[in-house]
Amino acid sequence: ADINAGKTKAKMCAACHGLDGLSKVADAPNLAGNGELYLSRQLKAFRSGERKHPQMSVIAAGLSDDDIANVAAWYSAIQVSVELPQ
Amino acid sequence: ADINAGKTKAKMCAACHGLDGLSKVADAPNLAGNGELYLSRQLKAFRSGERKHPQMSVIAAGLSDDDIANVAAWYSAIQVSVELPQ
Repeated sequence: ADINAGKTKAKMCAACHGLDGLSKVADAPNLAGNGELYLSRQLKAFRSGERKHPQMSVIAAGLSDDDIANVAAWYSAIQVSVELPQ
Repeated sequence: ADINAGKTKAKMCAACHGLDGLSKVADAPNLAGNGELYLSRQLKAFRSGERKHPQMSVIAAGLSDDDIANVAAWYSAIQVSVELPQ
């Protein structure tokens, strides 16, 4: 997978998920730091219709296997750290 | 929603998603910092069968609406920061 190609492709994800993988809208998850396996499985599930969402079903339909691998590589390469509530 | 009750309930999520919301296994997403709306929608989608996963379909079947609200409150309260790849 090509992380730089994934970063370029991820511009189409950014309005909802951020180019940094942090969600910008209430119904979209963070993508940052998720595993490549998880991310690519979800994109393929949206593409096949196994998982459904008004936006994602349309978007994933236009992605090739390489696009999916590249976008998954980009978001999985983002390092995440957390701070728990007191 | 009750964050502390959600933290207690989230012990059943922790083996895969971490009590800190960072995934411990390849096929599980990070939950930390995701919105309450997104998290509760996904749990309800697993519970109803709209979304399917070998583990999550079973686990969500045992969750009440309050459990879902509380677990979503816990994971959404975790602060996330990211560092992009160079």
